[in-house]
Amino acid sequence: MDFNKDDVSGFVGKSFIYIYDAGWRYELYVKNEVTIDYRVHSGIVAGRWVKDQAVNIVRIAKDVYRVSWSEPTGNNVALSLNLHNYIVHGTIFFPRWVINDPKKIACFQNEYLNEMEAYREAGPVYPIEVVDSFATLIYMRDCGINNEEVIACPPSELPDNYPECLSDKNLLPKKESALA
Amino acid sequence: MDFNKDDVSGFVGKSFIYIYDAGWRYELYVKNEVTIDYRVHSGIVAGRWVKDQAVNIVRIAKDVYRVSWSEPTGNNVALSLNLHNYIVHGTIFFPRWVINDPKKIACFQNEYLNEMEAYREAGPVYPIEVVDSFATLIYMRDCGINNEEVIACPPSELPDNYPECLSDKNLLPKKESALA
Repeated sequence: MDFNKDDVSGFVGKSFIYIYDAGWRYELYVKNEVTIDYRVHSGIVAGRWVKDQAVNIVRIAKDVYRVSWSEPTGNNVALSLNLHNYIVHGTIFFPRWVINDPKKIACFQNEYLNEMEAYREAGPVYPIEVVDSFATLIYMRDCGINNEEVIACPPSELPDNYPECLSDKNLLPKKESALA
Repeated sequence: MDFNKDDVSGFVGKSFIYIYDAGWRYELYVKNEVTIDYRVHSGIVAGRWVKDQAVNIVRIAKDVYRVSWSEPTGNNVALSLNLHNYIVHGTIFFPRWVINDPKKIACFQNEYLNEMEAYREAGPVYPIEVVDSFATLIYMRDCGINNEEVIACPPSELPDNYPECLSDKNLLPKKESALA
């Protein structure tokens, strides 16, 4: 084995911005080994942001990590991030009610947990919509663990020149950034 | 990029047997670029087998493939197979009714689709049970595409010395097989 599958230290603390092939822009902060924060900049649930989602994180190859979780909405998510080639792949299993009216979940979820669970119970759940898509990584930075400043406002309050305005170094090689 | 992410030819047509860390033994045949057959040898849904499940297959790294699908039961699954290190990681999102009574889905699903959909609608769906686990690959063979003989009987009808009785060569290196 050319890597230690129990060592996720090269992943935890990092923050990523990536754009799905459909144009949806997401921001993911790996807050610690069992928690993420995230923010949706654009796409069908643009405006959604979430702090302290419990997740499973594993290392499936030397430079490939997986993050999986089940949301209060009933959304189930499994992401893979390849940090050698700077590509992301996401599989999101959406209940039908979310696809029927995505704006219902476009909020700061932490303040609307009761509403999310009521929507979830009301359904309909089926048929599940599977969004299975590659995404291109456009920004990666190291924020350390348990940093509450990384995801701290709705996407609508971010500066126009975000993330370029950040003082943190973009860890992506220049060539790859240029591709975005 | 050191691989072509659109080329899944090194994965399609292969058949795998792997054992989850909890001891559950699964057999997966990648029938073609959009279809799998599978069979559960042991675990909470032992006896379950399925032909012609529609899936999404992608290549996330040079030797890492992802397979994702949503089942008639409402089970949602995302697997990663690392064919360099011979490890598998599965995330299975089980509806609550499956966990409450797993035997309900331990059948040849193709002959019970109406029953599966009735159970699915009856629920309860939530809370989702997330089974997120590594598995060790113990057998890999090349069966070609659209081979209906690979998964053609329930696990209870397999010979005691399966898969060692197969004439196909086990493509795993001997060292790795010995680990199992």
